[in-house]
Amino acid sequence: MNHDTVKNDYFWMAKAIQLAQQGRFTTSPNPRVGCVIVDENNQLLGQGYHIQAGTPHAEVHALRQATNARPQGAKGATAYVTLEPCSHFGRTPPCAIALVEAKVARVVIAMTDPNPNVCGKGINILQEAGIEVVSDVMAAEAAALNPGFIKRMLTGKPFVRVKLGISLDGKIALQNGISQWITGPEARRDVQRYRAQSCVVLTGSGTVKADDPSLLVREKEAQFEDYPLEHIRQPARVVVDGKSKLSRNYTLFNDGNTTLTATSQSHPDTATQHYLSVDEKDGKLNLHSLMSALGDKQYNEVWVEAGPGLAGALLQEGLVDELICYQAPKLLGDKGISMVNFPAFTSLDECISLSLIENRQVGNDIKLIFRPDVSSTRG
Amino acid sequence: MNHDTVKNDYFWMAKAIQLAQQGRFTTSPNPRVGCVIVDENNQLLGQGYHIQAGTPHAEVHALRQATNARPQGAKGATAYVTLEPCSHFGRTPPCAIALVEAKVARVVIAMTDPNPNVCGKGINILQEAGIEVVSDVMAAEAAALNPGFIKRMLTGKPFVRVKLGISLDGKIALQNGISQWITGPEARRDVQRYRAQSCVVLTGSGTVKADDPSLLVREKEAQFEDYPLEHIRQPARVVVDGKSKLSRNYTLFNDGNTTLTATSQSHPDTATQHYLSVDEKDGKLNLHSLMSALGDKQYNEVWVEAGPGLAGALLQEGLVDELICYQAPKLLGDKGISMVNFPAFTSLDECISLSLIENRQVGNDIKLIFRPDVSSTRG
Repeated sequence: MNHDTVKNDYFWMAKAIQLAQQGRFTTSPNPRVGCVIVDENNQLLGQGYHIQAGTPHAEVHALRQATNARPQGAKGATAYVTLEPCSHFGRTPPCAIALVEAKVARVVIAMTDPNPNVCGKGINILQEAGIEVVSDVMAAEAAALNPGFIKRMLTGKPFVRVKLGISLDGKIALQNGISQWITGPEARRDVQRYRAQSCVVLTGSGTVKADDPSLLVREKEAQFEDYPLEHIRQPARVVVDGKSKLSRNYTLFNDGNTTLTATSQSHPDTATQHYLSVDEKDGKLNLHSLMSALGDKQYNEVWVEAGPGLAGALLQEGLVDELICYQAPKLLGDKGISMVNFPAFTSLDECISLSLIENRQVGNDIKLIFRPDVSSTRG
Repeated sequence: MNHDTVKNDYFWMAKAIQLAQQGRFTTSPNPRVGCVIVDENNQLLGQGYHIQAGTPHAEVHALRQATNARPQGAKGATAYVTLEPCSHFGRTPPCAIALVEAKVARVVIAMTDPNPNVCGKGINILQEAGIEVVSDVMAAEAAALNPGFIKRMLTGKPFVRVKLGISLDGKIALQNGISQWITGPEARRDVQRYRAQSCVVLTGSGTVKADDPSLLVREKEAQFEDYPLEHIRQPARVVVDGKSKLSRNYTLFNDGNTTLTATSQSHPDTATQHYLSVDEKDGKLNLHSLMSALGDKQYNEVWVEAGPGLAGALLQEGLVDELICYQAPKLLGDKGISMVNFPAFTSLDECISLSLIENRQVGNDIKLIFRPDVSSTRG
């Protein structure tokens, strides 16, 4: 492959990835996918992205544009897709077959399908039809579009981000519970984006009792540039309430949006959509089972806004993929409430160790993204 | 002034500042000062920096080199000095007069003398001799050489840096006191540089009891590139022990280097060099008086390595100029020991608010430098 071809492949794949991001708030349980079709002279013929499950895939949008662009449509063209075209008849016909029928000459794929049962099948269909296929072009960037979908396909569990708004001394509130606001408006606005792109906001009964939060995307703060607010779907709320002791009077049970209570107690209506039945482990709700149950419900990304008990337990159980801290330049002092509860460790080897993957300023706060080191958890 | 002159002035002043930094571990109680002498064709004639109190000032070194460089020496040349040349007869004759006698044509000064009693006098001597004087060239950079000297000249108190090695959740140790090592070797090595450039390492009796530290520059870790280890002088240790209860058996009292105990108790030998007599405030050692006492002893920079009690008190009293945190990517949990003790605040308005001035990676840790916001302290 010559240098220009490689350069063009990266250029168009970057555009396809940008398109895929347009679906960031709506595609779940499907992945975010973008597609670009380029003619023999390296000119754009069509583009598209997947918007919502049950509606056409990215490739279909792009092929339609190509058909409208010239008499022969995509025939002889190159298609760039951020994810291996699907090979199965779901709610829409397989995209691999659509590309074959359109007679494209070449398909460039960022990453193969993460589902081990179908991985490579789309590529096979294309190659058997004589189409040249190149894959693994900007694979890491494409994977970053869909951490939840990929993890769920591989493990059955969602991708879990734990968010904590903390002071420099690691406190989430004063002794009297006051926490509004430790972090600044820019940090709180950044949170809205995560809520909007997540399938679930997970919290604990303690947080519900203390703050009576809605945990929905707040419209006033969610004026995302380049994204129409009315297209955002609200995440489901899941409340960990192992003993089913929480009253039903709180906001999130009564605002008309979905809230599930995760409980190990049998309940008159645990069979209804309001409850998620989870087993116990050591007398507490089994958080591993909880994550499997959320995966079974096809939730890709879980955003945790919880107190030190649940946040600490998830970290200790190795169930956290990313820890996102908004750290305010403030000191609350030793009497404040610490961000995570752990048992009294007696050696530094027992503490949870993390790898920093992002460190940037958000307003007056710093945003720190960590990945827990697997060896330091019981996961 | 034409563009080239301005450009040259910045170029040579930057060099003079670099030279001044060579004195960073040794000049106190004097300031760090550098000097460059440049001929009529913009060529270097001489350079120098102040090394140690009682030895020649930067200008003298540079003038000597100029005299050796050509028959007329510095006559007609331009001198760049990072601090206004001194006008007083101290342990060395005034540098302003040395420059006049050398018949330099022009003197460029980064900043005027911070001592209000002598500020401008050196410039007057030069101007009265018909020498052209330009000042405030790279003044901020020059001031950064001498935060302690400048603050002491202006207020009588030293510049105070509080250092804390913390986890992401703001803990300095496990419940059982184990803290070695939360931060990594790179952070601990960075600390050696601060100890070496400080006149005093300040700590509390609790830290001495818990860790029996030396608080000296550790030679093994202090292999500073470009700086000969044998030129480093060890800082004095000052232990806050208001009630004089600490036994004299700890390392820092017996290693042959200077240690002062700051106490409000009269003591058989408080008049000796081993004690610093300080009054009380609200039944505790008066930290404002302590800082004035350290200023009286001509200490420019104080480096605090203390526990949550003393660190918290200094912050609350508004006595901290910089808070330097090495934050390790670890979570110790709520049972760990918090980094600063404060009373139980009931409103977030009461907490100490900070301004972040540096954020960078040091090994696996991040180094955060803050300035406390004055309005949030009682200082």
